[in-house]
Amino acid sequence: MYNAVICRYHEIAIKGNNRREFEKQLMGNMRHQLRGQVDCKVRQVRGRIWIEHPDRNAFFSETELAAVREILPRVFGLESFSPARLVPPDMDAIRDAVAQMAPPVFATWFTRQQAVSFRIRARRSNKEFPLCSKEIEIDLAAVVARGIENDRLTVDLDHADITIGCEVRHEFAAIFLETFRAPGGLPVGCNGRVLGLLSGGIDSPVAAYLAMKRGCFVDFITFHSAPYTPPESVDKVKRLAEKLNAYQTAGTLYICNLAPLQKQIRDLCAERNRTVLYRRAMLRIAEKTARKHHCGALLTGEAVGQVASQTLPNMDTINAAVDMLVLRPLCGADKADSIRIAETIETYPVSIIHAPDSCTVFAPASPATAVPRHIAEAEEAKIPDYETLLDTIAENAEVFPAATPR
Amino acid sequence: MYNAVICRYHEIAIKGNNRREFEKQLMGNMRHQLRGQVDCKVRQVRGRIWIEHPDRNAFFSETELAAVREILPRVFGLESFSPARLVPPDMDAIRDAVAQMAPPVFATWFTRQQAVSFRIRARRSNKEFPLCSKEIEIDLAAVVARGIENDRLTVDLDHADITIGCEVRHEFAAIFLETFRAPGGLPVGCNGRVLGLLSGGIDSPVAAYLAMKRGCFVDFITFHSAPYTPPESVDKVKRLAEKLNAYQTAGTLYICNLAPLQKQIRDLCAERNRTVLYRRAMLRIAEKTARKHHCGALLTGEAVGQVASQTLPNMDTINAAVDMLVLRPLCGADKADSIRIAETIETYPVSIIHAPDSCTVFAPASPATAVPRHIAEAEEAKIPDYETLLDTIAENAEVFPAATPR
Repeated sequence: MYNAVICRYHEIAIKGNNRREFEKQLMGNMRHQLRGQVDCKVRQVRGRIWIEHPDRNAFFSETELAAVREILPRVFGLESFSPARLVPPDMDAIRDAVAQMAPPVFATWFTRQQAVSFRIRARRSNKEFPLCSKEIEIDLAAVVARGIENDRLTVDLDHADITIGCEVRHEFAAIFLETFRAPGGLPVGCNGRVLGLLSGGIDSPVAAYLAMKRGCFVDFITFHSAPYTPPESVDKVKRLAEKLNAYQTAGTLYICNLAPLQKQIRDLCAERNRTVLYRRAMLRIAEKTARKHHCGALLTGEAVGQVASQTLPNMDTINAAVDMLVLRPLCGADKADSIRIAETIETYPVSIIHAPDSCTVFAPASPATAVPRHIAEAEEAKIPDYETLLDTIAENAEVFPAATPR
Repeated sequence: MYNAVICRYHEIAIKGNNRREFEKQLMGNMRHQLRGQVDCKVRQVRGRIWIEHPDRNAFFSETELAAVREILPRVFGLESFSPARLVPPDMDAIRDAVAQMAPPVFATWFTRQQAVSFRIRARRSNKEFPLCSKEIEIDLAAVVARGIENDRLTVDLDHADITIGCEVRHEFAAIFLETFRAPGGLPVGCNGRVLGLLSGGIDSPVAAYLAMKRGCFVDFITFHSAPYTPPESVDKVKRLAEKLNAYQTAGTLYICNLAPLQKQIRDLCAERNRTVLYRRAMLRIAEKTARKHHCGALLTGEAVGQVASQTLPNMDTINAAVDMLVLRPLCGADKADSIRIAETIETYPVSIIHAPDSCTVFAPASPATAVPRHIAEAEEAKIPDYETLLDTIAENAEVFPAATPR
């Protein structure tokens, strides 16, 4: 029934020169995500992106349409989309299409309710078309009414159950009956590459999702403490990275073993400072990894005041460990906000699987809520070859997925 | 009709030792915000905070109750509240109170709909009370039903229009008929003090609101460029600070004139780098001000990719200008998210008043989207006595409100 999908994006998000780049990135991302599942062409015409069947006279299969409905709600930059039928810009062809497309959609609604309201929304960018928008709407309303029992049908211009859209352009006319929401935001990649720290908890995947929504491509880094943490801890983070990669072209996960450093911290530094020292080391290893792989910033799920390492003094001391921008999109969010997003993006069920993370290894009974910078630096100075240890951990990172060509 | 207000907070937000501090801060904030408007005592009993009329036998005036309903939705840390009547923990006293309190509330509902559903929710922490919770509920349902026409009343245990609460404790019983939402989050002040950069735009007041919601007390700093910006620019920011102060004890606004530095940047540096150089100078002056007034972090409304100065490379270069934690709670938010919050907290109508801000003064026609750190540093080195100029601007800050004792 459909040979195209109309994809809409907010032009307001795109200012001046960035517009071409935005559209190019968006189309590239759409092609990448649809590849292998939907045989199609993707092109941009007048502020819309059109997904078209390669053969104008053939329709997408139900499987392909299901894939479109699953994939496009994960493409940042898109606001909404409608499966559509493209026909020649000719009133008879448009009437035929509406007469054919409307009955099955109305039939679905009639299984649920006695009376169904509808409206027609016509737009005409082809000003040579013989009918104006208003005339097209009246004409098509009559076509719809002809096929359906009168007492079950009402017209409602404000809150219709079914909105039938008709866009008449020079090259074609498009008819559609349903509009689905896409996530908004900016196309992944149009705002550079960042390295997100993934802990296995609820917040860090949500932070990565929000950065992607602002157009950042996200690579990931995680820390385990084998043999003090089980392999399940890493498996869980791999699953989170896979969930998040559904929103972008494949990001790489770097998996680092922090245990060699943690043993030194356990043996040489004050117990209460451990968590802050772990976090400083993680950020430093992340910074090294980010520079190596051309990431312009680090990204964490930190929220002010959520745990002992997230007091302002400790966040400042942790932040001071690196000389790179750290994005903390959840720093002003309540746990309930994070959980709500985690549920929407389906990382929540994975995040709540119980598995110890690096921070819990040798965790202090009573962590300090304010470790000043100079204390942290003095503690680190006690560890022989501290910097070399960090380098070694960064260099020995396992890369997942192993064979991803970059 | 009411001599108390039951205030609820999520105990889940409070772990271990922090609980006492959280409750103390919350009660202090409530007393501060209610002061002068509601004559009351505020105390904590078993996981609830109670606002009580100083005279047990007197009721709050309608004016006082209106003030409570206006103030408590701005107290972070509270989840919900209910105006209540405290009576002796005695079934006759409870019945009398319900018989007296229910009719006016039902009457209001009957003006809007024919039938009204209700339920009773009893809780009994006083286990010596002769009736159990279930028995109290049945008893009070009969009291309610007695006063109202039968055919207009239904009982609905799941989605009642009116829920009548009855809490029986050792010292008193409390009866309430309405529950209002409060904003959640953490009590302002329990997570330290930050300095928020207020630009007069939509985002920076929202960022300040989110930081307060995470328990940060926020002071403010703003930059104008008199005589190149009009006095209205500053007036607008003062109004924003006042709006935001409704959520906390009074934060101070520091008002700095950036024009002397901007003239130097205009005359000595490349035009396209101006915006980044302005932002670096603003952060530096803010850092000096923050250290002087014991703020533990800076706070901005930056969102990745929103304007030319908010690309990752420019954010990194701007961030590198200071040696202090910078919180950016909106870095992962869409403009639409910011606008929605700005409307809720009523800063939006002020933010959209047209008034030029500092950033627009001598603004480049085509700002650079990636100024590397070393370029920014080289540009700043061209400005004679750059550091002294920053110090002078910080020291000459106008303080608003002028007479606030700190």
